[in-house]
Amino acid sequence: MLTKSHIKLITSLSQKKVRQQEQLFVVEGVKGIKEFLNSRFKLHLLFSTDAIFDAEMFLISEKELQKISGLKSPNTAVAIFNIPSTVPSGQDKKELELNGLVLALDDVRDPGNLGTIIRLCDWFGIENLVCSNATVDCYNSKVVQATMGSLTRVAIRYTDLETFITSYPHDVFGTFMDGDDIYSQALPKQGVLVMGNEANGISESIEDLITNKLSVPRFGDLKAIESLNVATATAIVLSEFKRSR
Amino acid sequence: MLTKSHIKLITSLSQKKVRQQEQLFVVEGVKGIKEFLNSRFKLHLLFSTDAIFDAEMFLISEKELQKISGLKSPNTAVAIFNIPSTVPSGQDKKELELNGLVLALDDVRDPGNLGTIIRLCDWFGIENLVCSNATVDCYNSKVVQATMGSLTRVAIRYTDLETFITSYPHDVFGTFMDGDDIYSQALPKQGVLVMGNEANGISESIEDLITNKLSVPRFGDLKAIESLNVATATAIVLSEFKRSR
Repeated sequence: MLTKSHIKLITSLSQKKVRQQEQLFVVEGVKGIKEFLNSRFKLHLLFSTDAIFDAEMFLISEKELQKISGLKSPNTAVAIFNIPSTVPSGQDKKELELNGLVLALDDVRDPGNLGTIIRLCDWFGIENLVCSNATVDCYNSKVVQATMGSLTRVAIRYTDLETFITSYPHDVFGTFMDGDDIYSQALPKQGVLVMGNEANGISESIEDLITNKLSVPRFGDLKAIESLNVATATAIVLSEFKRSR
Repeated sequence: MLTKSHIKLITSLSQKKVRQQEQLFVVEGVKGIKEFLNSRFKLHLLFSTDAIFDAEMFLISEKELQKISGLKSPNTAVAIFNIPSTVPSGQDKKELELNGLVLALDDVRDPGNLGTIIRLCDWFGIENLVCSNATVDCYNSKVVQATMGSLTRVAIRYTDLETFITSYPHDVFGTFMDGDDIYSQALPKQGVLVMGNEANGISESIEDLITNKLSVPRFGDLKAIESLNVATATAIVLSEFKRSR
């Protein structure tokens, strides 16, 4: 049975403050919930109109589902999962930071963009995503929805980006209008790639720490658009890092 | 002065049927309207709370602006422009179809995705975008908003995609899970690139017409996500076509 305190908890988890206090977040829909059930994430509570999950659950009515769903068209189930600690057990922090290509986001604010970028990390095998503290919360329900389950496979941490990059021992890449043509660069297997805010790009304090400025050339005429969307720019740059050299 | 018939017209233009009958569409916000005013598009009506445009306009109050705006936070002005004929004068249809790389969309349904793709066309100098009739209308206000003005620089036509591709004389490319690794292909300057629907990819009838099946390799592990978002996939594939060979 769905209780008032269940409804209160689920509703309050739309607030970042509450998610951080409780270390809980909401996942909606059958496919998404199944991906989280089959992952390292731990289930806290599951509510469904249908007994289709291999987990302990509350059977609820369609009317009750509508009360707890944040979607226009609720899809069968709503679950609450625990937010995992950033560093998986058995790996120390240093090791995580040093492996392969790391993506860092400098204040990406749009939930859809972050969701798409997490999905790109999953596709391109980027295991570590480092977000500035002002980047939108990855447990925001719109982000969770947009990642299509990729959130279960990418390790994401929020930190002071300046401190992180300062102590990072390899090259630091970022995209700028006046950077070097990315298509003619030899790109390494290790490094951190910084992508900037939707409106302002990479902030000045972070720009000072970039060792390699890159640019995605524009092929349209001079009157063409001034910038790419951050998610599509990330797609192009990750593709360049990963394609056979 | 804002009249009742103005409000009725603007409100009704949220419907595709009315946009097609009237051959009119709505643009909101100062930056977007200025881009359209400086383009081949012809202004029909302009309403603004501020006399900042070099065009005939109706000065309206903030309250009136709220009545006609589709945005949560209205931005100064709302304009109605004429939908241009697909083929610019001085160019015949055949010429348009043959020049350079043509992008074709097979039932892309999400306005945000279409807007992002139009912006990518602008960036990569793709002058012609051909949409299947079931693709979301490019004069939908969410699409117009997402294109950030790129709609003024990309020629878009809606047509029966099967008929268009059948009569197209060059190679026809499309992305599939089992296509050839795009990173190892020599990609031509001329051709049509087909991108498919968000949920179903390229339809069977169109797949039969594809001469070159391409694939963007996945670098994540086997459990990784099964597909890329259509806008990010388009970004990667256009980048591959345009990068120096």
